[in-house]
Amino acid sequence: MRLVTFGLANSLDNFIARSDHGTDWLVWDNEVAAISGEYWQTIDTVVMGRKTYEVAVKLGTTSYPGAKNYVFSRTLQPKPGVDVEIVAEDPVAFLRALKQQPGKGICVLGGGELAHTLLQADVIDEIGLNIQPVLLGSGIPLFHALAKQINLELLECRPLKSGSVYVRYRIAR
Amino acid sequence: MRLVTFGLANSLDNFIARSDHGTDWLVWDNEVAAISGEYWQTIDTVVMGRKTYEVAVKLGTTSYPGAKNYVFSRTLQPKPGVDVEIVAEDPVAFLRALKQQPGKGICVLGGGELAHTLLQADVIDEIGLNIQPVLLGSGIPLFHALAKQINLELLECRPLKSGSVYVRYRIAR
Repeated sequence: MRLVTFGLANSLDNFIARSDHGTDWLVWDNEVAAISGEYWQTIDTVVMGRKTYEVAVKLGTTSYPGAKNYVFSRTLQPKPGVDVEIVAEDPVAFLRALKQQPGKGICVLGGGELAHTLLQADVIDEIGLNIQPVLLGSGIPLFHALAKQINLELLECRPLKSGSVYVRYRIAR
Repeated sequence: MRLVTFGLANSLDNFIARSDHGTDWLVWDNEVAAISGEYWQTIDTVVMGRKTYEVAVKLGTTSYPGAKNYVFSRTLQPKPGVDVEIVAEDPVAFLRALKQQPGKGICVLGGGELAHTLLQADVIDEIGLNIQPVLLGSGIPLFHALAKQINLELLECRPLKSGSVYVRYRIAR
């Protein structure tokens, strides 16, 4: 079964962006690039929600090359020449089916909303965080309220030179 | 100047207790005891808010022996035989003065409210967290909204056998 992973960078107080979606506080350096590059080798599929996709497009990324791109939306229309498949069906059912197909890992990209739905439905297998050394004080939260506790197993914990902490967890079942 | 430190255990989604104040999910083992024991050697003073104090009393702890105990409250009355000093004045002014006096480190104990006030006023020097491998999903939050971003420097990062991650940060100034 394919591994579904959710990972991103967050502040120590668990924000993924400022209230205005600003991510100027994120450190991107060689160490992060290496971790990201290694991770990218393990996946061949990227799924994201509409909001994340629209932010990516604004920032100039219409799709992630080398991976099959799915965007969940009931309203978006496919654009010619853009290598993204719009999925109007329920993300949970879609991901459950996708996990059964042959292939490499599946990356859940972006903000907390899609990840939250998939976490609640127990579709996500691993969480990776790059905890930045900052308290933002306000912003867009990483984790939303869950109906029940989710136990984790620490797979990896690595301090980075920038002062960030890279942690990777398996969802305990 | 004496170091003011704030430390506790939190869930990965940044709760310090369940909504009913439950902390059954916290792992206490030899490693945590060793870290706690080492830390205890560096301080001689404990300060806490009224709510934290009342929880401690309920759990059977009326004071922390070996340290000077201060509880901030405008309503609590001192109890004979209880080695705790009730401080009715503003915690920020009190702590600023206390930092100037000779002595070992000062520990800000307990929930987020007093720590939040002291963080905002730039009175806290270090934060230590024992991040437990769990998403609680709801509960009493560790960090509250801050008026401005606080930058941190990672001093220490250590994965524990239990799957917790011990991190220690200096407030960057």
